[in-house]
Amino acid sequence: MSNEALRVDGGRLWARLEALGEIGAVHGPNGERGVARLALTDEDREGRDLVMSWMHDLGLSVVIDAVGNVIATRAGNDAGAAPVVVGSHIDTVRTGGRFDGNLGVLAGLEVLETLEQHGVATVHPVSVAFFTNEEGARFQPDMLGSLVYVGGMAVEDALDVRAADDGARLGDELARIGYAGPQPCPVAAAPHAAVELHIEQGPVLEDEGITIGAVTGVQGISWTELTISGQSAHAGTTPMRLRHDPGYVAAAITTGVRAIALEMGGTQVATVGRCEFHPNLVNVVPSTVTMTVDLRNTDEALLQQSEEVFTALCEHLSLEEGVTIERRTLARFEPVEFDPTMVDLVEATARRLGHSTKRMPSGAGHDAQMLARVCPTSMVFVPSVNGLSHNIAEYTTPAHITSGADVLLQVVLATAGTLPPVV
Amino acid sequence: MSNEALRVDGGRLWARLEALGEIGAVHGPNGERGVARLALTDEDREGRDLVMSWMHDLGLSVVIDAVGNVIATRAGNDAGAAPVVVGSHIDTVRTGGRFDGNLGVLAGLEVLETLEQHGVATVHPVSVAFFTNEEGARFQPDMLGSLVYVGGMAVEDALDVRAADDGARLGDELARIGYAGPQPCPVAAAPHAAVELHIEQGPVLEDEGITIGAVTGVQGISWTELTISGQSAHAGTTPMRLRHDPGYVAAAITTGVRAIALEMGGTQVATVGRCEFHPNLVNVVPSTVTMTVDLRNTDEALLQQSEEVFTALCEHLSLEEGVTIERRTLARFEPVEFDPTMVDLVEATARRLGHSTKRMPSGAGHDAQMLARVCPTSMVFVPSVNGLSHNIAEYTTPAHITSGADVLLQVVLATAGTLPPVV
Repeated sequence: MSNEALRVDGGRLWARLEALGEIGAVHGPNGERGVARLALTDEDREGRDLVMSWMHDLGLSVVIDAVGNVIATRAGNDAGAAPVVVGSHIDTVRTGGRFDGNLGVLAGLEVLETLEQHGVATVHPVSVAFFTNEEGARFQPDMLGSLVYVGGMAVEDALDVRAADDGARLGDELARIGYAGPQPCPVAAAPHAAVELHIEQGPVLEDEGITIGAVTGVQGISWTELTISGQSAHAGTTPMRLRHDPGYVAAAITTGVRAIALEMGGTQVATVGRCEFHPNLVNVVPSTVTMTVDLRNTDEALLQQSEEVFTALCEHLSLEEGVTIERRTLARFEPVEFDPTMVDLVEATARRLGHSTKRMPSGAGHDAQMLARVCPTSMVFVPSVNGLSHNIAEYTTPAHITSGADVLLQVVLATAGTLPPVV
Repeated sequence: MSNEALRVDGGRLWARLEALGEIGAVHGPNGERGVARLALTDEDREGRDLVMSWMHDLGLSVVIDAVGNVIATRAGNDAGAAPVVVGSHIDTVRTGGRFDGNLGVLAGLEVLETLEQHGVATVHPVSVAFFTNEEGARFQPDMLGSLVYVGGMAVEDALDVRAADDGARLGDELARIGYAGPQPCPVAAAPHAAVELHIEQGPVLEDEGITIGAVTGVQGISWTELTISGQSAHAGTTPMRLRHDPGYVAAAITTGVRAIALEMGGTQVATVGRCEFHPNLVNVVPSTVTMTVDLRNTDEALLQQSEEVFTALCEHLSLEEGVTIERRTLARFEPVEFDPTMVDLVEATARRLGHSTKRMPSGAGHDAQMLARVCPTSMVFVPSVNGLSHNIAEYTTPAHITSGADVLLQVVLATAGTLPPVV
């Protein structure tokens, strides 16, 4: 069999997804099977232990680094060559699914098992990794493990981070679950390349009937929290002209940022996800409203443009209604562009395998964007049913899982380089 | 001294407001002095006991009815004549002020003390009343005591009402504080007339520099709760065109009802006071939003018109965005119109005393609107500083308090009828 004809065992991959999904399983009222496996909890340890056991079963060389990232490597023929890194994360949000992150790790394992089973040697080593605390559901920032891995955050700082829920120190929790490893961090030498298979977590592929997304980069993110203060007043006794209503201003900002996104088009999105009225009573004009605005674009200049129009809208409304608006930046990340050669490789590989493809940005953050700082990187997306993720109803069909893993396998082969089979 | 020259003792009235305000007093960080005296609590008993002691000191004939309303009467010369009723309530909301309700009761007492002090006899008896649970902060409905007083609710039903906070039965609480009285309820014979002095609880009088409001009626109220259900989605991965965002729809309804009120003008007001996003996360398009819409107008036909335009707006937005909107009516009251002769009397009296006046509706509910069901009724409004009420910063100046009480005195004299002084 030529290496180009090599395919993963989709049933074996699916079985591992099912097995890992049992750890921290959450069952919904309509048969949904989600997962709550927050970073560095007992459930995370149990999940890590299971994946580690599979890594050992495959005879891989497994290291744990100082921030708990786990990297399992299959040697290449060139002992000094940098590895091709595949992988993702196995921590989840509190109402997470079985695919987010987990797919990238277990598909990486499946790629290595397929190579092993068929006796395929690669020039570069191939590593499958799972990175600590990608979700950020328990510790901030998100993508912490991969950020430290590439040197974007000092290990000491990462270990001192406190959990949002119980205030536990990340370093203490790592030690508690037995994953404070000896391997220094950041990684000594940059990988040769990196590829991450992930569910789309959005509705675009399904909506367009496409199987494989070749991910071109990650959208830039601008998160702002607004605290709008007006004058609490009686809903019955206060004429409209005498109001200073922060609820009205919050509403006008919400419809306003929607209009900004629609007018700009392209990849621009704008979301008001959080909004809280005080005192939140039916017959009282609120005194304050706290809300968030999430702006994203793949182009930094356009993202800045959306921020400017949004700022002008706030200033206009503040004057018009006689309210004050305090602004606080919660997060600001510039867009990440993946390596064009790697993106082309993902796209061409998927087409060669007969799949419909779409070049697309990622709207969500992923470990791959951290790896992109140090090596050529891209991602492979597969469709999410109804676009759902961070939701116990998250689902991707077995056929799409297998298609994505096959693309990952062929991209790894092309990137790691293969030697002629020993005859 | 002619009766027309009779004036209250503003200092005495102010001192009683201060004394009653000490019971359940709440002190704010900036020197505010508010009151928490919820209906039928120990604080309410203490307040009732104090006002009762003043009633007895004045030699009034005091009765307590079956729902805890307290009515103190000064006899008139015509033994069979129906009384002129003044008064209000002394219960407060949890973050209440010292004037809301309390002013109407204590100004009534001051009127009777002034008549007594000057030996002025009236044809009709004059009663000062405080009604149970006007605020509705502890027991629903609000204005319960005056509603039962006029026969709008059966005593038995009122006594069976349960407290929103601790589930206590109203009848048990009445008995506990010693105010389950022997007087039958509803009142046997309709009063001759009723007048209630109250703070405006809104900003209109202050804004226009006017001292006395002659209240023409009470706005009709339409309260609707909306539950808007869309599709929770990732803020980064979900293109604008694929969203079903209940947060956007809530915002468009909020700006829409503001536009309806501004376009209709007149007394129409529209308020969104309550709004809750679920799951309320910065990077998640909400799955559901619950909100309330409060519409008010003094004209029933116009109020219905505002409801119709609001309904059409909801239906349009529901279709446009692909969300469902469940509607629930929380409250619906038709407007109350006060007796034109009584309104004219309040206005003319205030002018005769040299005050600037404005005919205006009440945006809030008051005991007087219940009395208006059985006898000619109006109200006297005095300005609220910054329009604040239901707020520990609620304040009305001593000068305005005295002006309002003088108007009340002269309206009572004109309504109760006076006899020539004994020479």
